Amino acid sequence: MPIITLTTDFGFKDPSIGAIKGSIFSELGDVNIVDISHEVSPFHTLEAAYIIKNAYHTFPKGSIHIIGVDSEITPENKHLAIALDDHYFICADNGILSLIASEINPQKIVEINIHDAVETTFPVLDIFVKVASHIARGGTLEVIGKPITAIKQLKAIKPQINDAQNQIQGHVIYIDNYGNVVTNVTRNTIQQIGKGRDFVISARTTRFTKIYDTYSHAIDFNEAKEIREEEGKKMAIFNTANYLEIAIYKSNPHTVGSASTLLGLKLLDTITINFN
Amino acid sequence: MPIITLTTDFGFKDPSIGAIKGSIFSELGDVNIVDISHEVSPFHTLEAAYIIKNAYHTFPKGSIHIIGVDSEITPENKHLAIALDDHYFICADNGILSLIASEINPQKIVEINIHDAVETTFPVLDIFVKVASHIARGGTLEVIGKPITAIKQLKAIKPQINDAQNQIQGHVIYIDNYGNVVTNVTRNTIQQIGKGRDFVISARTTRFTKIYDTYSHAIDFNEAKEIREEEGKKMAIFNTANYLEIAIYKSNPHTVGSASTLLGLKLLDTITINFN
Amino acid sequence: MPIITLTTDFGFKDPSIGAIKGSIFSELGDVNIVDISHEVSPFHTLEAAYIIKNAYHTFPKGSIHIIGVDSEITPENKHLAIALDDHYFICADNGILSLIASEINPQKIVEINIHDAVETTFPVLDIFVKVASHIARGGTLEVIGKPITAIKQLKAIKPQINDAQNQIQGHVIYIDNYGNVVTNVTRNTIQQIGKGRDFVISARTTRFTKIYDTYSHAIDFNEAKEIREEEGKKMAIFNTANYLEIAIYKSNPHTVGSASTLLGLKLLDTITINFN
Repeated sequence: MPIITLTTDFGFKDPSIGAIKGSIFSELGDVNIVDISHEVSPFHTLEAAYIIKNAYHTFPKGSIHIIGVDSEITPENKHLAIALDDHYFICADNGILSLIASEINPQKIVEINIHDAVETTFPVLDIFVKVASHIARGGTLEVIGKPITAIKQLKAIKPQINDAQNQIQGHVIYIDNYGNVVTNVTRNTIQQIGKGRDFVISARTTRFTKIYDTYSHAIDFNEAKEIREEEGKKMAIFNTANYLEIAIYKSNPHTVGSASTLLGLKLLDTITINFN
Repeated sequence: MPIITLTTDFGFKDPSIGAIKGSIFSELGDVNIVDISHEVSPFHTLEAAYIIKNAYHTFPKGSIHIIGVDSEITPENKHLAIALDDHYFICADNGILSLIASEINPQKIVEINIHDAVETTFPVLDIFVKVASHIARGGTLEVIGKPITAIKQLKAIKPQINDAQNQIQGHVIYIDNYGNVVTNVTRNTIQQIGKGRDFVISARTTRFTKIYDTYSHAIDFNEAKEIREEEGKKMAIFNTANYLEIAIYKSNPHTVGSASTLLGLKLLDTITINFN
Repeated sequence: MPIITLTTDFGFKDPSIGAIKGSIFSELGDVNIVDISHEVSPFHTLEAAYIIKNAYHTFPKGSIHIIGVDSEITPENKHLAIALDDHYFICADNGILSLIASEINPQKIVEINIHDAVETTFPVLDIFVKVASHIARGGTLEVIGKPITAIKQLKAIKPQINDAQNQIQGHVIYIDNYGNVVTNVTRNTIQQIGKGRDFVISARTTRFTKIYDTYSHAIDFNEAKEIREEEGKKMAIFNTANYLEIAIYKSNPHTVGSASTLLGLKLLDTITINFN
């Protein structure tokens, strides 16, 4: 059965998601439709990029990923279908796919050109579903678009490194469900620039000199539960996608607070790493 | 595979939705269960009506739609199963289906009467799932209910037109994920009453004299991005369901605000259209 | 088709849920993946226990339930796979399953021991999905874990009964989507201790002397709608899972308030039942 995933900023309340799924079932009959996220902040291409990059790769090759964020077609926002890493992505040319495409070269990019045949005020429903269904039936990208070679880049996805090679300036690209703060600095970048040197991470007024591999590595389980530092402990870790993350052990943003609220970190805030 | 959709006010946290899906799988084995929405405001029949009306029609004919909003059976709130537009709807007789049935005549209406055989404190789980499974197996409505001819009407779904035929008074029936404000005035009504005349739409203190067909039609892409009016621009548009909507271009209710918050528009507020 | 359910505190926005589903499809091909809840409060084992207990049993025998709450493996938090009531549960040994296991004896318990072969910073994705897929393919629990006999108990799941057998002290274990307040006192406990005696339920400053079987039983439909007490009426009922619940008729926590907000009841607050 083909797999079509959905990543949008439509929310779970409106009729949009239901209508899209109905339309896919009407096109394809049996199909596995999987929600990746519908809670991208409205028009937030950076969040959408982070979410799709960290979810798509676990799906089987050949899966089709519809991304419905900032997808209204305008002279400055064309529609794309891309084959990359043996997956298919359907998205507006608004930079979202550049976070994936900066690491893995696309196999094929087309600008979708079926708009003359389909009148629409809801392109995800009318255009993206049609393109996804075409691909699911084994159709080629050339039938629904014209090949192009480049896509728009998203600003702010790359950290800055100074000339002396002893400082990385990154920033916050995502805040997760626990209020933990994900930066755009990867384990790779830190290893390549740091070359094993000691470092200090500065996130506003908080400093870290160690990066853990898991949350629980920051806890000393040899100490008795009553006296050891545990809930509320601040830490820097590499998250499961290998990005540097500023976290608080077992945080709950709705009660005790989170890295984001307690350390005052917001999207696009700067994080600095200085090497000795 | 049969398709059963769910539209409820149960939310995504409680065990209710999981229990309902488990029960459907236990009844039918393989089946496509599709969430339309579980975030209808509690007991809000008008919201539920808007959501199901704008989602059901993209599904294949024969799909079965369970609506679990205000569904406890009382002497004043019977249970219905309706065939309409070659779809099936299972819902309490609380007006929700009247928004669809006012435009398309039901093919058959029955009042469900299997309650004596099924003791329940959770009718969506115990009654609606049983009825849906019966229909999915090809059963007829007469087996699970007695034919009736009329259902309850929902107030406030029709705009008022004055005797002089130069004013439409509508009101807000839905506020979407972007905070855009949907009214009960359709493109059809405006065309029939307006007959091409100029008009002024009044939404509290804001006035509009033009209705766009898409969000981006309100933006002049010939102007440079830096100087043109864009984010935050107020506009009236016909939404994808052809209802008059008061919107703000690329609004985000959690940050910059939305049509609802910025213009002070709430559910059931009045919107007036005066023709010259 | 095998059924795998998911109950987590990952939320619907982050890439986690999408990644887990992609991984399951990659392991198993066609499979029914069902979300029970992803909105458990972060690390809240009591909420998770209530939700899974009240949803799992409607699924077909043989269903596999993944519970991703507080699941990082530590010296104090092992990973379990349990067969119980002909269902399978995969969960950390953090007490969540004790709410079910206190009523139904497990058929088999193993401590998962495949961690040496799988490096992971995201155990639900890397360990729990592997175990679930193994079970879905018909594998036995002994292959992925070593049999053990006991699991951790969750505190605060049992009400206290005084020596004179005329008082039950329970507490709030869950607050639902409508703001209704679920206690850990079951219909059974009240019947066994109360033996038909009159009683007074005290929930902070509010008293109840009657427990209804459904919400609408608290309403007198013989009175005219205009004068009868209805919306906003406080009541004690047995909910669909037979727990004592303090509720407000047709409450909406976002507008008119709910039992939780209006009566000032929070998780773990005490509810007392005194018998005459």
